[in-house]
Amino acid sequence: MDYDEPRIIEEVSKVAKIIDREIARIEESSAGSLYRAAFYLPKLGGKRMRPFVVLNSSRLVKGHEGAALDAALAVELLHNFTLVHDDIMDRDEYRRNHKTTHVVYGESTAILAGDLLFSKAFEEAAKAEELSGARGIVRELALSSERIAEGQFLDISFEKGGKVSLDDYLEMIYLKTASLYETSAVVGGLTTGQHNETHLKMLSEFGRNLGLAFQIRDDYLGVFGDTAVTGKPVGNDIIRGKKSAPILLALGKENTDLSPLTSALGNPRSAHEDVNRAIDFLKRVGVDAECRAMADGFAMKAVDSLSNFEDCDAKSLLSALAFYAASRDR
Amino acid sequence: MDYDEPRIIEEVSKVAKIIDREIARIEESSAGSLYRAAFYLPKLGGKRMRPFVVLNSSRLVKGHEGAALDAALAVELLHNFTLVHDDIMDRDEYRRNHKTTHVVYGESTAILAGDLLFSKAFEEAAKAEELSGARGIVRELALSSERIAEGQFLDISFEKGGKVSLDDYLEMIYLKTASLYETSAVVGGLTTGQHNETHLKMLSEFGRNLGLAFQIRDDYLGVFGDTAVTGKPVGNDIIRGKKSAPILLALGKENTDLSPLTSALGNPRSAHEDVNRAIDFLKRVGVDAECRAMADGFAMKAVDSLSNFEDCDAKSLLSALAFYAASRDR
Repeated sequence: MDYDEPRIIEEVSKVAKIIDREIARIEESSAGSLYRAAFYLPKLGGKRMRPFVVLNSSRLVKGHEGAALDAALAVELLHNFTLVHDDIMDRDEYRRNHKTTHVVYGESTAILAGDLLFSKAFEEAAKAEELSGARGIVRELALSSERIAEGQFLDISFEKGGKVSLDDYLEMIYLKTASLYETSAVVGGLTTGQHNETHLKMLSEFGRNLGLAFQIRDDYLGVFGDTAVTGKPVGNDIIRGKKSAPILLALGKENTDLSPLTSALGNPRSAHEDVNRAIDFLKRVGVDAECRAMADGFAMKAVDSLSNFEDCDAKSLLSALAFYAASRDR
Repeated sequence: MDYDEPRIIEEVSKVAKIIDREIARIEESSAGSLYRAAFYLPKLGGKRMRPFVVLNSSRLVKGHEGAALDAALAVELLHNFTLVHDDIMDRDEYRRNHKTTHVVYGESTAILAGDLLFSKAFEEAAKAEELSGARGIVRELALSSERIAEGQFLDISFEKGGKVSLDDYLEMIYLKTASLYETSAVVGGLTTGQHNETHLKMLSEFGRNLGLAFQIRDDYLGVFGDTAVTGKPVGNDIIRGKKSAPILLALGKENTDLSPLTSALGNPRSAHEDVNRAIDFLKRVGVDAECRAMADGFAMKAVDSLSNFEDCDAKSLLSALAFYAASRDR
């Protein structure tokens, strides 16, 4: 997995600046306090990796540049909408090192703020279709948001208990996270105004695998990440009892005494040593390496999906993004 | 306002049956308990007046029939989405004589159920565009849902107190209610696949005025309605202190002792006699007649907006609907 990490980080942050500026423009073109609440989260920044996928997928197929920007905004607004509503459901009080929307503005306003971002996403998607003469961008986005809702619903039901298999987990992260990466690549591909099934299939596979790599790395960082870099408490997901990849891989080990893990899992009163003991245990049974291998595997698949496209800068950037998603530290 | 009331009621209920059937079909094509929660409210029925407007506006301009049905479903799903979220925000426990979605399924599921209906609405809107070759249906729907969110936000802020003028009120009901009627007429007009500005302008005016007539009559019934017919407690909106048309008209009377109204207004412990005294007072100062005149005025404007269309069955039905909206008892 040899790739130019500094360059991909720089290119992603260039896109982030463009998206930040456009989001500010959309907010400024509207007025009223509901808009302030709605754009509170999108204006806090974020990696903007989904817009990066849209823009470079569009470049890869020589799509319409303006339409790609609108589609990129649509995807990012949709993503932010899901975060606003998820934070209400999960009662999360902090995101991106700031208080969440419902904490700042109250729950009713946060529901409406999310709904407003959702509407704006479709407004941008409609613009992208009009600019490029494309069809299918709106529908792709609608199907994706249905999947995201189903994924969040599954995720909530996992937390309520019951046995969760690794396959259940992969299905859930596909719906909740990877599906929007898949959509990002596909809508990028649609900005040509044509419906090239071969291209769309390759892009869809790229996005899905990239998304899975991204989420599995996220889960890895939630357990093994460096607090100073991730900004999250040590072993955060162990304390929360989150049924994520490392935990499920460990729970699936047969003939193994799982008590070093299970005594800390989902126990908010676990002492620092208990959590560290659980992490050591996970490393001892090799779950950290398994997770890295899993994320790498999906990243490789993502890169492979692009192999039939001619070599070009957009293709290199998308490939580098897949490797970055699987190996990043934050 | 001479119109064939039994016929319009029959025609509206014919459309309701079609929409009921299609909604059941959409639900059956999906699986899982989130879909059950999402379709719980849409399957409880409703007058389906918005789909009626879409279908007949489309007939009026000889639009694509299949596209009109998809657009009608889009509008009805969007409407139901707003009801699911509004009921959470307003803490309403009953709607259509049944428990609300969040009471039955819990709040998190209800937020997601609403989001799912929202997505489905855009999926149907995309289908309508594809079938008819139209542009603008999705964008119209997105703008409308932005307005609805702004309207609900205003409505909530009205309830928190502060002076509300009749103009503020009209702005709020335009955003929250009339805007979706406007959109219903416009998307019907777009199903020709053409963008006939003259037609769209007339339809937009029709829908907006129809929606205002509808909501003002709703407010009238919330104070003066017959409990046996509306199913709501006597003087419901007086007890809730809702800043609706009849109340605002009364509060605007100068040199009048308003105490018979203000002593019962927004007081959940008002005795039966207090509420009746407030209603008698409202009638004595002529607010009931003023409200009826207001609703009638908007209905007339709606009908006038269609005057440049050639006479046909769809035009008669839309006109009759406007009169019905302004004079219905339930």
